[in-house]
Amino acid sequence: MPAPLTTPAAATVFTMVLTQGPVSRVEIARRTGLSSAAVTKAARPFIEAGYLEELEATDRPGPGAGRPASPLAIKPDREFFAGVKITDDELIGVVTDLRAQVLVGAHRPLTTSSPEGVVATLADLVAELLAADPAYRQRCHALGLAVSGDVDKAHGMVRYSPFLNWRQVPLAKLAAAATGLRVTVENDVKSLTVAEQWFGEGIGASSFALVTVGVGIGCGLVVNDRIVAGSHGVAGEIGHIPVGGEAPECHCGGRGCVEAIAGTAPIVTAVREALGDAELTIDAAIDAAHAGDVAAREVFARAGHAIGLAMAAMANLIGPERIIVTGDVQGLAAYDLFEEQISRSFASQAFGAAADCRIFLRPRPFEQWARGAASVAIQTFFTLQER
Amino acid sequence: MPAPLTTPAAATVFTMVLTQGPVSRVEIARRTGLSSAAVTKAARPFIEAGYLEELEATDRPGPGAGRPASPLAIKPDREFFAGVKITDDELIGVVTDLRAQVLVGAHRPLTTSSPEGVVATLADLVAELLAADPAYRQRCHALGLAVSGDVDKAHGMVRYSPFLNWRQVPLAKLAAAATGLRVTVENDVKSLTVAEQWFGEGIGASSFALVTVGVGIGCGLVVNDRIVAGSHGVAGEIGHIPVGGEAPECHCGGRGCVEAIAGTAPIVTAVREALGDAELTIDAAIDAAHAGDVAAREVFARAGHAIGLAMAAMANLIGPERIIVTGDVQGLAAYDLFEEQISRSFASQAFGAAADCRIFLRPRPFEQWARGAASVAIQTFFTLQER
Ligand SMILES: [Zn+2]
Ligand SMILES: [Zn+2]
Repeated sequence: MPAPLTTPAAATVFTMVLTQGPVSRVEIARRTGLSSAAVTKAARPFIEAGYLEELEATDRPGPGAGRPASPLAIKPDREFFAGVKITDDELIGVVTDLRAQVLVGAHRPLTTSSPEGVVATLADLVAELLAADPAYRQRCHALGLAVSGDVDKAHGMVRYSPFLNWRQVPLAKLAAAATGLRVTVENDVKSLTVAEQWFGEGIGASSFALVTVGVGIGCGLVVNDRIVAGSHGVAGEIGHIPVGGEAPECHCGGRGCVEAIAGTAPIVTAVREALGDAELTIDAAIDAAHAGDVAAREVFARAGHAIGLAMAAMANLIGPERIIVTGDVQGLAAYDLFEEQISRSFASQAFGAAADCRIFLRPRPFEQWARGAASVAIQTFFTLQER
Repeated sequence: MPAPLTTPAAATVFTMVLTQGPVSRVEIARRTGLSSAAVTKAARPFIEAGYLEELEATDRPGPGAGRPASPLAIKPDREFFAGVKITDDELIGVVTDLRAQVLVGAHRPLTTSSPEGVVATLADLVAELLAADPAYRQRCHALGLAVSGDVDKAHGMVRYSPFLNWRQVPLAKLAAAATGLRVTVENDVKSLTVAEQWFGEGIGASSFALVTVGVGIGCGLVVNDRIVAGSHGVAGEIGHIPVGGEAPECHCGGRGCVEAIAGTAPIVTAVREALGDAELTIDAAIDAAHAGDVAAREVFARAGHAIGLAMAAMANLIGPERIIVTGDVQGLAAYDLFEEQISRSFASQAFGAAADCRIFLRPRPFEQWARGAASVAIQTFFTLQER
């Protein structure tokens, strides 16, 4: 059942209530520049279809005022969305409500990375998730998938995903056939950025950046209220800003890249060398630094320096209002080891008022990546031009 | 006489004819999504006021077709615009037509940098420019000013301009009082970017970057069809991306900045050291390199390397469709000394498909900066929300 989206005004009004509601018609008219009549007309079909409701008027009408202003609010359980993050060794799935609140989650290990094998496991996982409540089966029509790498969202194609070793995989089509749902596919960092834009720290910011720390160093950008996609399919590659001078070499072919200094692999290598233990894991490296080992702490501080410089380079170019930092499991476990140096190096390299940009750490559960996938499904479901 | 701008559709239609015309109503309707009736309605007042005209139909109507499609075209001399670039030692001014074609230009030396003194000289210069043709006096109502530094365009304020040592100067107000024209004030690099966006290499590109090489290394960015302004007033500071590692120190307080390696001053210093001549000028440094001096050439190649890396960092983050390179007099005189290394270092550091971004050199006369100022006046004149 498609949402009752017929006009740009309908999309604008619904999106405002979804991301900023409850909000009165008068206030919607003021913020969007639409007439009150246009707002009422745009909202009506959503109310009739059960997506929006009118709350009781909270304010009494003033003298001479007309009807009291009844705020419009979303009915979060009118529609449910499934979201799955695909990693190289597992699927993490969630079902969310209309506001991207996670209602249920589940994991499945992957024993193969062939597209067919992954899609079969995906179909099982989605079936399990939707079986948790009869309402999900009834009112969940869309599935978002998040994959690292180069994704063509418009065509539902994974153009290239190094971790999965996929090239030109028509994932949306395969997953739609296996699940019976409408499927969107998006890059995982962009998916997280959409979740922040509509349902998180990005609300109300016309420009912000999301930086993810972990195996890779990634970045999602929103500028002038829109995700930056990159004309050639590449954007947000903060991990390949050359802040280290001529060394070290990076897997991308460049030199001095942030990711070659501050990604999980170079950190493990550096701590192994410092401690003379060639078998050390990243968890053990983090433990050593937390236990106070000076050499190990120095490696993390160097990584924080590189990340802080790259964030400053990004802020000098784009001028985001805020930067939200999050990461994968290891990235977040190590974050307190980076944090001070990130702030200090950012401040030293930010140009003038770019230093006013606030940095938030948001250590979210790993499920957040699956929630990001669901957020893209929600955004696509309610965006006129993309349907 | 304000332009007949009353609705967003009017702004859209006029802008399309201005930047992409001559173009038929049918084609405008196709590109904008407006109905043919809406296009006709939007265009009529502009035709009546003499801004647009209908050209003779070039195509004969096909079988079954209605009236032949008469393309709409701009009447470039319906309105003229003045533009002035303010440097620390001179004013460069132009008068342009509606399409930002330069019709006349003039310079004035500055003997003071006090706002009052500059504005007095500015009024003289503008009077001289407008006296060149009676039509200018009659049909020029807007003046654009371009200043380096931190400019608040919305309020016509120069918040901080280091070269002029201005802080919180209400330049638009002062200049409007002195000239009787409507005045816009914009940062100089952003002004040049607007000129490219509407009247130059940026036409048809939803994302592009302009990089300026010279005393400073600057950058203007257009992403998703809009100039990137920076939430805190800072954006496009490509000159302060730290590509040099920990050295050299930069005037901004950072380290390894592009501008501290590839700006005119550090180049002169490095060539002076290499040639053992403490009095050498930038022109002599460029001459020495052009004459084949290996040490001097090496300095310029190192500068090109830094610029190329910074352009790659920018492309990795934003993914512009194109990069346009231009500069000040010295920057352009030296460009052939940078060029090869810029391309090579860009290619080595660009991430994946970001390397597909094309780089254009556009060695334009210094007048281009004044034309940029006029372009901002044009854009403001015909943009509904900014008037
Ligand atoms: Zn790299
Ligand atoms: Zn600097």
